[in-house]
Amino acid sequence: MTYREDVEGVDAAILMHPRVWEASGHVENFTDPMIDCKHCKSRFRVDTLGDTIAEKKKKKFLESLEEKLEEKAALEEVYRIHPEVNDRFEAVLENEELGLKLLEEVNCPNCGTQGQFTEPRSFNLMFKTFVGPVESTDNTVYLRPETAQGIFVNFLNVQNASRQKLPFGIAQIGKAFRNEINTKNFLFRTREFEQMEMQYFVKPGDDKKHYDEWKAKRLQWFKDLGMTPEKLRYHDHPEDKLAHYAKEATDVEYEFPFGWGEIEGIHNRTDFDLGRHQEYSGKSQQYFDDEAKEKYVPYIIETSAGASRSFMAFLVDAYHEEEVKGEKRVVLKFHPKLAPIKAAIFPLVNKDGMPEIARKIEADLRPHLRVFYDAKGAVGRRYRRQDESGTPFCITVDTQTVEDNTVTVRERDSMNQDRVAIDNLLIYLLDKLK
Amino acid sequence: MTYREDVEGVDAAILMHPRVWEASGHVENFTDPMIDCKHCKSRFRVDTLGDTIAEKKKKKFLESLEEKLEEKAALEEVYRIHPEVNDRFEAVLENEELGLKLLEEVNCPNCGTQGQFTEPRSFNLMFKTFVGPVESTDNTVYLRPETAQGIFVNFLNVQNASRQKLPFGIAQIGKAFRNEINTKNFLFRTREFEQMEMQYFVKPGDDKKHYDEWKAKRLQWFKDLGMTPEKLRYHDHPEDKLAHYAKEATDVEYEFPFGWGEIEGIHNRTDFDLGRHQEYSGKSQQYFDDEAKEKYVPYIIETSAGASRSFMAFLVDAYHEEEVKGEKRVVLKFHPKLAPIKAAIFPLVNKDGMPEIARKIEADLRPHLRVFYDAKGAVGRRYRRQDESGTPFCITVDTQTVEDNTVTVRERDSMNQDRVAIDNLLIYLLDKLK
Repeated sequence: MTYREDVEGVDAAILMHPRVWEASGHVENFTDPMIDCKHCKSRFRVDTLGDTIAEKKKKKFLESLEEKLEEKAALEEVYRIHPEVNDRFEAVLENEELGLKLLEEVNCPNCGTQGQFTEPRSFNLMFKTFVGPVESTDNTVYLRPETAQGIFVNFLNVQNASRQKLPFGIAQIGKAFRNEINTKNFLFRTREFEQMEMQYFVKPGDDKKHYDEWKAKRLQWFKDLGMTPEKLRYHDHPEDKLAHYAKEATDVEYEFPFGWGEIEGIHNRTDFDLGRHQEYSGKSQQYFDDEAKEKYVPYIIETSAGASRSFMAFLVDAYHEEEVKGEKRVVLKFHPKLAPIKAAIFPLVNKDGMPEIARKIEADLRPHLRVFYDAKGAVGRRYRRQDESGTPFCITVDTQTVEDNTVTVRERDSMNQDRVAIDNLLIYLLDKLK
Repeated sequence: MTYREDVEGVDAAILMHPRVWEASGHVENFTDPMIDCKHCKSRFRVDTLGDTIAEKKKKKFLESLEEKLEEKAALEEVYRIHPEVNDRFEAVLENEELGLKLLEEVNCPNCGTQGQFTEPRSFNLMFKTFVGPVESTDNTVYLRPETAQGIFVNFLNVQNASRQKLPFGIAQIGKAFRNEINTKNFLFRTREFEQMEMQYFVKPGDDKKHYDEWKAKRLQWFKDLGMTPEKLRYHDHPEDKLAHYAKEATDVEYEFPFGWGEIEGIHNRTDFDLGRHQEYSGKSQQYFDDEAKEKYVPYIIETSAGASRSFMAFLVDAYHEEEVKGEKRVVLKFHPKLAPIKAAIFPLVNKDGMPEIARKIEADLRPHLRVFYDAKGAVGRRYRRQDESGTPFCITVDTQTVEDNTVTVRERDSMNQDRVAIDNLLIYLLDKLK
């Protein structure tokens, strides 16, 4: 369901034309440094190889090698494309000789041969595959490493079809793929993951205002969906760490049990992306502003959330253990909007017409809400099962129901009970869920 | 929204462990025959090469080569995995010599050299990629060519978590990928496409009953969503075309402008899939039936629909041109459930308090329905725009609204208008949409 009329949805391709990833800079710069053992031909990512030497040496070793590998400008490009991948680049040191020297002391983790490594080379983090039967460079395509580019290249398609005027946004939820060597922390870093991104197209000059608005809105979104405010913070990117085309950038971070981690990035990407696609495609990406009677390439404010990461953050945040009447209660305190089951329906006993009424309620609610019918065990146990699933409302059909067509609706967190007429039940629940 | 309590949803990985595709038979058998020119080393799919010779020759040529390539059993395996890919295998002829002879008469489409081709070899239709930096067989993974296997390998996970008992289903909507050489007919055959599959797990012996039920239900589903009954039919697979483990199979076909095409397949897959995964994983896939007090590997009735194809069929079917009061009306007669915009809201004129009331209605409906606000132009024109978008309901705020808080709700197909109290509008619409 769309809550804003100025944001359109789109479902772009995972396998796009490879030129898209040249225009975006990913083919050239979305890379990690790799090294080969000359003796046994094994290949290692430089930083994993670093694990085999002492911590201090490793640090300098990495820093110097990485500096060797890339020009400063290229690093900034990488940083823009995906800031958190490149934290490791942040402390680039001066001493190139030290790096080479340390490399000579390292044994190959595979064959044990000391110091026989090639020069570090770039390894692209995009998964590649081949269209057609021939596995050649000409036929290489990439699995998208982010959903954003699918929105940029469809900007004018969507704008024309939807009759939207600036400022407006295009949003997409979908899979993205990165050939990470070090996956970690459950859903936090995986090779296949779900993004939810929104790119908001604005008039140049209005970008600061919209950036500030979206920055505030996006943190608030997590809070409105019940995330603990103290476990949310911004990490603003300092000005000297910004790429030259990024005017501002911030991360929304959540405090996971394993530490603070980015769950969303908000970026002022300027006209860089549409400008690059205009250049590489030869197609104008200009928007005609019929109020100002002028054409321009819009600026883009991006809200780039990890759906998988956010899912994990909501799950972690919702988990509570409480004591209720001397017993431990495990409860997932999901915001009702996020709860996978919205309401459970219990006949108090499996007789006296209660199951029939309960099944009728279930049938009436099911087209509108995900509901769960449970007739097994004591009502207290049934409540507990739903608490563990995070179901916000439990509806019980009891003896009074048979007399006056009302039911109890028990709210998960407060455990308070309301008496609601069956005829008003759908509206009662929809109102709580909206 | 789930309408059945016996079907659970799942979102499985696109990149799964490669052994999954060995167990499923895709690595070995999901193939097309390819041929190389010995002179210039170009590679061609046998049937595209056939395009360069006369139609009759091509036919015999293909038939004989394809017969040469594969044993009958292997063909049946391919047929099971994806019936419509293998239509071309259906008319396999006897004459091997003719095929080889004709091959000698063919010129290479690239270099023109005549008759210098290798023996045909198998080309796998799965897209492959590599996990990690080394591009070797050991690191090869595949983009899923169907969503079904992700359901099979998660069968016991889902069953345990959901406390479902047989019979029950697991459903999934998601992307699948096939390295088709000949994409065609718009969304009908593409390399990246959307499937919506449901696998229904049943007790062996009950499979015939459930197969018949799902076969009937699935055709009815398309009809219930408004598809023209005369453009829908079954294509039952004749018994001699079934693989030995498939007991029954049928396609639901729709008559597209380019001819009849499969939009869904219903298959009785027996215990073949879970049996293979049990064999290849070494993990029991047995279900404990606590009524019968016995363990067994369930049978699977599969309803495998192409979401992209079905989308195209619904779009084609919904398109109508009509004459209304001497003017042409273009209308997409989508079932309200399928319409991308559920209701449009018009203030009759942009004054007298009407826009404020209309915006209030919009704000109240938007959390529940996708709505569209339009205040531009004559109401007749605004109706026509929504007709073209397939919006089933148009709500107009007029002078009477200001007096008595009622609006007109105009239905797209009949163009009839109801007078509805604003307070009842949400329920009125939800009732029509359910």
